Amino acid sequence: MSKVKAGIINVTGYAGVELARLLHQHPEVELTSVTGRSAAGQKLGAVFPHLSGLELTVEAALGEVDIAFSAMPHKESADVILPLVNAGVKVVDISADFRLKDAGEYPRWYGFEHPAPELLAKAAYGLPELHREQVAKAQLVANPGCYPTGAILALAPAAKAGIIGPDIIIDSKSGVSGAGRSLNLTTHYSEANEDVAAYALGGHRHLPEITQELKLLGLKEASVTFVPHLIPMTRGILTTAYAPLTSGKIGKGEQGKAELRQLYLDFYQNEPFARVTDSPPHTKHTWGNNFCLVYPTIDDRTGRLIAVSAIDNLVKGAAGQAVQNMNIMLGLPETTGLEALAIYP
Amino acid sequence: MSKVKAGIINVTGYAGVELARLLHQHPEVELTSVTGRSAAGQKLGAVFPHLSGLELTVEAALGEVDIAFSAMPHKESADVILPLVNAGVKVVDISADFRLKDAGEYPRWYGFEHPAPELLAKAAYGLPELHREQVAKAQLVANPGCYPTGAILALAPAAKAGIIGPDIIIDSKSGVSGAGRSLNLTTHYSEANEDVAAYALGGHRHLPEITQELKLLGLKEASVTFVPHLIPMTRGILTTAYAPLTSGKIGKGEQGKAELRQLYLDFYQNEPFARVTDSPPHTKHTWGNNFCLVYPTIDDRTGRLIAVSAIDNLVKGAAGQAVQNMNIMLGLPETTGLEALAIYP
Amino acid sequence: MSKVKAGIINVTGYAGVELARLLHQHPEVELTSVTGRSAAGQKLGAVFPHLSGLELTVEAALGEVDIAFSAMPHKESADVILPLVNAGVKVVDISADFRLKDAGEYPRWYGFEHPAPELLAKAAYGLPELHREQVAKAQLVANPGCYPTGAILALAPAAKAGIIGPDIIIDSKSGVSGAGRSLNLTTHYSEANEDVAAYALGGHRHLPEITQELKLLGLKEASVTFVPHLIPMTRGILTTAYAPLTSGKIGKGEQGKAELRQLYLDFYQNEPFARVTDSPPHTKHTWGNNFCLVYPTIDDRTGRLIAVSAIDNLVKGAAGQAVQNMNIMLGLPETTGLEALAIYP
Amino acid sequence: MSKVKAGIINVTGYAGVELARLLHQHPEVELTSVTGRSAAGQKLGAVFPHLSGLELTVEAALGEVDIAFSAMPHKESADVILPLVNAGVKVVDISADFRLKDAGEYPRWYGFEHPAPELLAKAAYGLPELHREQVAKAQLVANPGCYPTGAILALAPAAKAGIIGPDIIIDSKSGVSGAGRSLNLTTHYSEANEDVAAYALGGHRHLPEITQELKLLGLKEASVTFVPHLIPMTRGILTTAYAPLTSGKIGKGEQGKAELRQLYLDFYQNEPFARVTDSPPHTKHTWGNNFCLVYPTIDDRTGRLIAVSAIDNLVKGAAGQAVQNMNIMLGLPETTGLEALAIYP
Repeated sequence: MSKVKAGIINVTGYAGVELARLLHQHPEVELTSVTGRSAAGQKLGAVFPHLSGLELTVEAALGEVDIAFSAMPHKESADVILPLVNAGVKVVDISADFRLKDAGEYPRWYGFEHPAPELLAKAAYGLPELHREQVAKAQLVANPGCYPTGAILALAPAAKAGIIGPDIIIDSKSGVSGAGRSLNLTTHYSEANEDVAAYALGGHRHLPEITQELKLLGLKEASVTFVPHLIPMTRGILTTAYAPLTSGKIGKGEQGKAELRQLYLDFYQNEPFARVTDSPPHTKHTWGNNFCLVYPTIDDRTGRLIAVSAIDNLVKGAAGQAVQNMNIMLGLPETTGLEALAIYP
Repeated sequence: MSKVKAGIINVTGYAGVELARLLHQHPEVELTSVTGRSAAGQKLGAVFPHLSGLELTVEAALGEVDIAFSAMPHKESADVILPLVNAGVKVVDISADFRLKDAGEYPRWYGFEHPAPELLAKAAYGLPELHREQVAKAQLVANPGCYPTGAILALAPAAKAGIIGPDIIIDSKSGVSGAGRSLNLTTHYSEANEDVAAYALGGHRHLPEITQELKLLGLKEASVTFVPHLIPMTRGILTTAYAPLTSGKIGKGEQGKAELRQLYLDFYQNEPFARVTDSPPHTKHTWGNNFCLVYPTIDDRTGRLIAVSAIDNLVKGAAGQAVQNMNIMLGLPETTGLEALAIYP
Repeated sequence: MSKVKAGIINVTGYAGVELARLLHQHPEVELTSVTGRSAAGQKLGAVFPHLSGLELTVEAALGEVDIAFSAMPHKESADVILPLVNAGVKVVDISADFRLKDAGEYPRWYGFEHPAPELLAKAAYGLPELHREQVAKAQLVANPGCYPTGAILALAPAAKAGIIGPDIIIDSKSGVSGAGRSLNLTTHYSEANEDVAAYALGGHRHLPEITQELKLLGLKEASVTFVPHLIPMTRGILTTAYAPLTSGKIGKGEQGKAELRQLYLDFYQNEPFARVTDSPPHTKHTWGNNFCLVYPTIDDRTGRLIAVSAIDNLVKGAAGQAVQNMNIMLGLPETTGLEALAIYP
Repeated sequence: MSKVKAGIINVTGYAGVELARLLHQHPEVELTSVTGRSAAGQKLGAVFPHLSGLELTVEAALGEVDIAFSAMPHKESADVILPLVNAGVKVVDISADFRLKDAGEYPRWYGFEHPAPELLAKAAYGLPELHREQVAKAQLVANPGCYPTGAILALAPAAKAGIIGPDIIIDSKSGVSGAGRSLNLTTHYSEANEDVAAYALGGHRHLPEITQELKLLGLKEASVTFVPHLIPMTRGILTTAYAPLTSGKIGKGEQGKAELRQLYLDFYQNEPFARVTDSPPHTKHTWGNNFCLVYPTIDDRTGRLIAVSAIDNLVKGAAGQAVQNMNIMLGLPETTGLEALAIYP
């Protein structure tokens, strides 16, 4: 049987190039076309030596494919995706352009009027653990942001079970690759090394995604404070989420912790890429693979839920999840091409 | 005038050795005696090459000094300090043994009965920004923990002004030197590099210190969740603290932020080592010096205070603050020997 | 067809655990037994969370296998391997115990009398690029050291072609994982981070391996200075090798460089895991995969060869090369299970 | 007595800003003027928060000063320095514009005709350990490059004593700050982290400096191969230098090593900032201070000198050495303002 033809629009960022790596290793899909602006005309392996096994040239425009991944910046992504959707091509959008259901959020958070608000309802929010069925039916999947992936999966079981109140604090720590491949003083080695800082205290663009999904899970009044931090490592996001436990919904002390753990285990029991861990997870244990590790516990003294999640921001937080979504859209086993274990140490 | 004679008990940990560096550069004090167990008998410069300028031999027991610093582990520190206090020597204890006012906390958090509970009231909690006068009069100063220093200074102005409620989340990110010089798989390079994890989710020993001080500042009902994280860098602690703003105590929007900022500026206006920054602070800007950088802001959407602080865990979080306390105890200008700027990049 | 059964003796070091990762992903081999001393009785995934997909318990003694990998320390490895060899089991030894052909080198470099000197001639030195045929026929393969792999592959084409003289300098830079998982102050995070140093200036144990192979390649009078350095990263070895060009054997200027490059390209033309690069290689481009990247050039001013190689010390420098050797021993395609691209960034 | 007025031209690079830090802490000098192009008009502390203690505004042109430091790029530095020299101002040039005595080297290595070749003879090459007297008399001092500082000090005693032959290999490993503050993909965090590579294999600009000084030390036929490497840390250069020992000039075995060591000890016996170490030096032991640590040994098997040096590239390799030169030019004790110990860990 011939392989599915896949293409990547704007392959030259870290998400795009990680997608190329994963698709190259995918047994059912062939990466046949990659685009990029500044690098157009160059061999992919000349720009990214670790991809020199791929015999591809970066093109200015996408060739004919069965499924396209867009790694364009927001707004530009919608512009390039709309003709593809109209042409019947399946699309996974790694940008934010189809993540928010409310078109009114785009001017506020992204500074542009959405060009196709009617598509927002049809696009699936590609967090398979929550929306697998919609993804399976969708022609267009909005791949979640890296922070929302970790934050939502940390809180989803508790939110769904109705055991937490709406006052939620999400404190995330991201490796520097999350800031992309574009040059910036913040991500200059000597500035980012041996340093940590919070950023986007006025509101990060990933907040509305997180809030949207928590509300869908049942937390109608969700009042979320989300603070991301940049820490000196390349890959990984650790998210520590805090929420008050609703009185009486869960036991006290060790029993409460056991109930909570069981609730998480049940929620993720059939999930191939979400694993509830016995102890607080390390991002290192997800390095290069598609897992989200989740650890819930209770702060006995204060009656708060503390839920910690770890992902590789470029895999489960971007390219790996995109492949997972593609597998679902194509009716392939969800783990195809994503079986790699984390690389340790 | 002859210099004050100072000694360090257990110089061989990171706090002890940093103290040796700072005291060596102090114009009014002479480091005359350092002790250590395994290293006893060796030249200090043989164990720590960066200190080879100091002509000191590690001793088994402390020589005669005017002021002693103890960098012993908890419990052992009290044991070695008591005779010194009885002998009239001034002491700065870098361990936790005299930080908590309630002797009943020691069995719970540190697993031992306090050997001298009557001294707890006499010992000053050596956070000069809060207890300068007590420090000035004290014979025994309990140098605060690294996390409490950053956490308390982040919240003190707001707590004192009564503008926040008691539900407090403190999320701290520490460089690996905070875990000490003793060997441990967690701090083995290949394990700690390119990794981040939360730890002590069941309750970190620094929590009671933080709570004690927040209550003293007026937050009688303080209900604190504190989660520390280890991140891949050597020095620095960034603390992100979250608390609900008490309704009506502070304005809305930009005006509220300006009022908040002014409140912090006023609180720290005469402080030589606490600086309110214009933007979220970077630990890099405290590398090697005694500053605590604090940035308060308001999350408009949720009405929460977000206060971020940055310190060098080995300086303001340990040895530098110990020297600052010593200066106060000796009646010296508080910044003596601590004028060094941060080293950047 | 049933899979080949493989076992790992002493799985708990970094080479052992990397081997477990690679074998788990190997389509023709099943990892059925792993041993370890301190961890015996524990689930492998409990000790190494990234391996929790493997349903294996660490055992005290190896189960019945078709091929065994020993990741034991030197001397102990020979002790455990000899009975296996006598029992007809194929063995890849990751230790140094069968790398040196001259039994007299063992007391000198490793401090023990070799227990089975007659086996040294029969064991193949498992650098497939040089000894593929011997590996294919061998029952016992000595997997090369990490430094020798990079050093020998950097110099082999030039040595074989007779274009360099015997005065060779090899300067290697290794990530910290090369120093193993055992705790040591040198590899304590706060000591190794932001630091670089040379070590083993009196002679590193990998020197006799390098010399042995260079002599076999034709450099009978090889006089090698080898200095390893530890640099602050987890994985990777970069080797920079220097040798005088033999007068008249190769052209001048750009022509000479082109001849040299062609000579390297020819030497490695059929090699699946050695690639001659267009520019000086980065270890990052081998992160997690089995490639050795080699870049030869000429220092025009001095008439010297400079050859640089990059490997992942735990893959091509240890576990990946062991799998490559296994593939050859089993008659499988050499790249089976080793197709993964490097993970970037 | 009023302080000497000092100025920094182009303060905004890493060398410039480190100079500002050091001069601010200098007891005899006052930093009164700093210039910068893009940052002109801004408070220095707004651009560099760790310098917010300095009440200086970045200016477009230098104010009136007694001594000026130029941290301009090459060629531009000469342009800005010439008028100052003509006006009688003392100048320390951190650029390369006055380091090479042979004007003919400038077109070849730096791509410009030297605008004032007659000044090259008058300018002192500011490596105090070799040219202290010239520095003391000079109006214009050329501050050495970072790599040459480490390389020359590693080899100087041996070169001067005539115990080594001319075939010299210098392999240097530099932290990323040596590549400057300008943005570049090579120094983008996610690219430079967890990576090492050699660069400038065709010839680095610091080579002629090194060769010039080695020849002055007596190695008339010096044939130097110099290969720099970038390693993932912020500060520090480790240089490993290799040279054949001249037959009969030094003893064999341990006796030879002892003679060599004594020769180095004698050479540096009165040097405040060069220290011969007992074991291979770590760059960490120079972090933030002005020392060059040197360790010489003999590779017995091959009869080669191996000399290793460690410096902080921004201090002894740039700003610290500039202050040392200034002290000498002003007749101050050479260590004034440079007494800080290295910061460890």
